[in-house]
Amino acid sequence: MKYFVTIAVLALFAFQPIKKKKVIFFGDSITQQGAGPNGYISKVDSLCRSDKMQNDFEFVGKGVGGNRVYDLFYRFQEDVLDQNPDIVVVYIGINDVWHKTTSGTGTEYKKFGAFYDKMINKMKERGIQPVMCTPSVIGEFNDDTNLQDGDLNFYAKWIREYATKNNIPLIDLRKSFMDYLDKNNPQNEEKGILTTDRVHLNNAGNLLVAQDMWTAVKKIK
Amino acid sequence: MKYFVTIAVLALFAFQPIKKKKVIFFGDSITQQGAGPNGYISKVDSLCRSDKMQNDFEFVGKGVGGNRVYDLFYRFQEDVLDQNPDIVVVYIGINDVWHKTTSGTGTEYKKFGAFYDKMINKMKERGIQPVMCTPSVIGEFNDDTNLQDGDLNFYAKWIREYATKNNIPLIDLRKSFMDYLDKNNPQNEEKGILTTDRVHLNNAGNLLVAQDMWTAVKKIK
Amino acid sequence: MKYFVTIAVLALFAFQPIKKKKVIFFGDSITQQGAGPNGYISKVDSLCRSDKMQNDFEFVGKGVGGNRVYDLFYRFQEDVLDQNPDIVVVYIGINDVWHKTTSGTGTEYKKFGAFYDKMINKMKERGIQPVMCTPSVIGEFNDDTNLQDGDLNFYAKWIREYATKNNIPLIDLRKSFMDYLDKNNPQNEEKGILTTDRVHLNNAGNLLVAQDMWTAVKKIK
Amino acid sequence: MKYFVTIAVLALFAFQPIKKKKVIFFGDSITQQGAGPNGYISKVDSLCRSDKMQNDFEFVGKGVGGNRVYDLFYRFQEDVLDQNPDIVVVYIGINDVWHKTTSGTGTEYKKFGAFYDKMINKMKERGIQPVMCTPSVIGEFNDDTNLQDGDLNFYAKWIREYATKNNIPLIDLRKSFMDYLDKNNPQNEEKGILTTDRVHLNNAGNLLVAQDMWTAVKKIK
Repeated sequence: MKYFVTIAVLALFAFQPIKKKKVIFFGDSITQQGAGPNGYISKVDSLCRSDKMQNDFEFVGKGVGGNRVYDLFYRFQEDVLDQNPDIVVVYIGINDVWHKTTSGTGTEYKKFGAFYDKMINKMKERGIQPVMCTPSVIGEFNDDTNLQDGDLNFYAKWIREYATKNNIPLIDLRKSFMDYLDKNNPQNEEKGILTTDRVHLNNAGNLLVAQDMWTAVKKIK
Repeated sequence: MKYFVTIAVLALFAFQPIKKKKVIFFGDSITQQGAGPNGYISKVDSLCRSDKMQNDFEFVGKGVGGNRVYDLFYRFQEDVLDQNPDIVVVYIGINDVWHKTTSGTGTEYKKFGAFYDKMINKMKERGIQPVMCTPSVIGEFNDDTNLQDGDLNFYAKWIREYATKNNIPLIDLRKSFMDYLDKNNPQNEEKGILTTDRVHLNNAGNLLVAQDMWTAVKKIK
Repeated sequence: MKYFVTIAVLALFAFQPIKKKKVIFFGDSITQQGAGPNGYISKVDSLCRSDKMQNDFEFVGKGVGGNRVYDLFYRFQEDVLDQNPDIVVVYIGINDVWHKTTSGTGTEYKKFGAFYDKMINKMKERGIQPVMCTPSVIGEFNDDTNLQDGDLNFYAKWIREYATKNNIPLIDLRKSFMDYLDKNNPQNEEKGILTTDRVHLNNAGNLLVAQDMWTAVKKIK
Repeated sequence: MKYFVTIAVLALFAFQPIKKKKVIFFGDSITQQGAGPNGYISKVDSLCRSDKMQNDFEFVGKGVGGNRVYDLFYRFQEDVLDQNPDIVVVYIGINDVWHKTTSGTGTEYKKFGAFYDKMINKMKERGIQPVMCTPSVIGEFNDDTNLQDGDLNFYAKWIREYATKNNIPLIDLRKSFMDYLDKNNPQNEEKGILTTDRVHLNNAGNLLVAQDMWTAVKKIK
């Protein structure tokens, strides 16, 4: 009888599903598209499977077009906290800069940090692991002549310094994109290398983001 | 014995402090200044005393310079919900429009409504009575030539319609200001009638706001 | 002999072509489109024919899309002075206001007046009769809630005052449009009454402009 | 007799004033200030004297605060052509970029080139030698994080390419400033190294500009 029980327990243990880590990608239209068929989230999932880690992670896209950091905060309770994620990859900042000139509704530098910091702190309180990304590009010129390059660099710099200071994993997409464009944009095109329209990712862009993201995420214990 | 008990109960009742209604004024720099010596909140308090209702209400200013509706949402938990108010007078919208042109960090029309609506709903869930104000002025010209008149009218219209539809007390400051300027700005000055600088209130402006607010607040049961 | 000479002189006079007044319409995309098949300039021409005055006037469109007052000045020598017109109808100001928010390249209020004044003075020096128009609309809401209403009113006011002060014929298109929309936009639509897209004229808009313009132009001796 | 004549001719030649080359500095507030006591134009004059070339050049400042390229064109006839200069140093572009965000009245990229090109061509027709400068800085951060860095680089690039293509002397102030700031701004300050306020020149800035300008101007035959 005792023997039988032991076997039953072992069997139970063996078939008990291991709790997957739930990873939320939290962002704007790039992330919204990223959840589509060839989007970066789908590619992260493929990379995960290639590494035979599909039992360790599940991936959820929570991107909404046009979002700035304050729009993330607007839906932070519902789309992040209420979802009980283990890891949240925050990929925001492009519209915060871009919308200053397109519709006058971007985000002040200080407020960008304030909203971001508040969400990071709430995640930490709940034991959620945040991962921060620098904003990629608005325009693919590789000679520092894109209209928003200065401002994007400024916001990216804040993210890098905040991540370092607070010991948060950083995915430096802006640096990856710039390095890639230095090598792969010999005609200095404004779009078409990693984006379709200067901002939204084409297949190469989605792949680059996916590789950077998977490299960072799979390291998280 | 029964007689004695009755007297004791009466005495207890007589000395029991009546619970004052806590009124929070939630807004931007105008409200921040409104809490100062001659600000509109101080004047509301004076009007309340004139009506001998100082035992019925207490007034708290929660204004922060530069705030837009999304900045109110940023501090909504701490500055409103955690304060357990009975009534919240929301006076916001000027920077949402103004900052579009000054720093490119105003608020989109649809997002203005979304953030506002979310706060109103959270107040209602808690049994807090919201009161909505239309944004007053950016410029005191009375012939519809202030740069942001169209946009302010547009946002004010949303507030009016939302308040009506949702049965929320409305303080139509923009209408009060316009009516006042029609009568009292014969030289069509850009500032100096109700404001010091086209936006922030002078003594007459604070008094006008205080009268409108007190009229609305004292009616609330 | 004398008799014969007299007849010959009369015959000469009768067949001598009367010099038509050359009217240039000088403006932006609205004027550029105005020169098209159903554009306002074509309609002015039809109205002129209805009044049997086609031997008195010829009409030339000089509109270029996106033009602001400083763009008119850029091509003023070539497109106005070098054409030797008798009358120039200037219809400008929409992009001066509009481009402030769309691309950050509008025109300062003071510079708007300075460029305009310089061209008017150069026309007067040459004996060219200028006619000024107020800018029509950016949005057809009739309750003062179009984003640029305040600024358009401000620039229109400058044009009215300048024209009055300098005794220049004025075509107050903005007033005509507003009056028309008060009566003919009962659903308060943003576009579709006089414009196709809030700015560019549909057939009704072209007709309204043509009537106002012809009324003003035919009076000029 | 012949001897006498020869002497007379020599005397005439000796006392005949050599025609100085008239150099106009044509620009915005930086050039307006440049004509002041310690401004860059005064310093160019000092450098010219040090080189004992004060009989070869005279320097005239024609800078007006807030000017963009279209404002230069506005006063081009009066302030340049009517002055009969030999050389015109054009230092413009900062406000064309800057005013996009401060007042929505900057200059479109294509129009920047169009206005600039028109003035260069008119100078060439008159035999005036133009000299082009790239716009210096809006902000002295040396890590590409100034808000307008991308746009300034874009406009500077146009100037460099136009000057090269049209064989016009170029003073690459932006490059000089950037090189200087790389070496002399170790704390990455936003202002105070070459400017007082991120844009207008302090003494070091005026000196740097003066040296670059004098180097270019004195070479012109």
